[in-house]
Amino acid sequence: MSLPKKIACVVTDMFEDSEYNEPAKAFKDAGFKVVVIEKEKGNKMKGAANDVTLTVDVGVDDVNPDDYDALFIPGGFSPDQLRADHRFVAFAKHFMDVKKPVFAICHGPQLLITAKSLEGRRATGYKSIQVDMEYAKATVLDEEVVVCNNQLVTSRQPDDIPAFNREALKLLEST
Amino acid sequence: MSLPKKIACVVTDMFEDSEYNEPAKAFKDAGFKVVVIEKEKGNKMKGAANDVTLTVDVGVDDVNPDDYDALFIPGGFSPDQLRADHRFVAFAKHFMDVKKPVFAICHGPQLLITAKSLEGRRATGYKSIQVDMEYAKATVLDEEVVVCNNQLVTSRQPDDIPAFNREALKLLEST
Repeated sequence: MSLPKKIACVVTDMFEDSEYNEPAKAFKDAGFKVVVIEKEKGNKMKGAANDVTLTVDVGVDDVNPDDYDALFIPGGFSPDQLRADHRFVAFAKHFMDVKKPVFAICHGPQLLITAKSLEGRRATGYKSIQVDMEYAKATVLDEEVVVCNNQLVTSRQPDDIPAFNREALKLLEST
Repeated sequence: MSLPKKIACVVTDMFEDSEYNEPAKAFKDAGFKVVVIEKEKGNKMKGAANDVTLTVDVGVDDVNPDDYDALFIPGGFSPDQLRADHRFVAFAKHFMDVKKPVFAICHGPQLLITAKSLEGRRATGYKSIQVDMEYAKATVLDEEVVVCNNQLVTSRQPDDIPAFNREALKLLEST
């Protein structure tokens, strides 16, 4: 029996609660492992709506991207804070470079812009960042979910979570 | 005697408290008028640090940009929310198009990216948005304050406020 696939989730304070909680639950229910990565193991983080508190499983300095099968970036005000720290940018860039599955919702693609990993990709994101994504040379589609090259899954907002989960799971189960 | 110059300040919840408070105080102390513009007159807005509560002076639907001499965009998580609403994007674009003074600090330039008004300009901003600004065709300088074409004043973060205020006031007093 093979080990369950491990999904790295990069997230910090002010994440959009449902955009962590609902995909993470869907991934776990399907038998995948979700590992929460932020600055330091044991840190507690709160969602913007204060509904969800997360505890960091692995600090970013102790993480090896080779140990993970996919990357998950929830939205809210979390991605903009993560991308101010080059360690998270480099971590995200790895998954894009080696073409492992990446799931980014709402403001999640901001981390991929800073990694310069959206160039030439089809993607979507929260409406406030769509112009940024176009400037970053992505083809931006105003759709509930966009799957690019069987690798990158992006969605716009909490309403899109069911479509986001569906396409992410399809990718995890087929790769 | 001429009327005091009027500065339009576009701002919403989660603004960086000091990035509103200190420039606004400097502008008022120098005899300028600061008018707070958000969705609806009378709305109360809180800064991210909860230090400052602002009350909206004029709702965005009732505002005429011709009535203002300059635009001030404080940072924090406010500009990203404002730019999700096309009315604030159009309002900001007016000041850039007619070359009135624009003062944007920290995340403030996000509103100018969405307005597609940074192309060809020299500017700075909070480190997390500097790649966005480069993609948006600005020349980005990592300096405490950047003044472009005697019109656009940008800074990176709260530490830069004294330089930001100095250059903004110089422009207001000379134009």
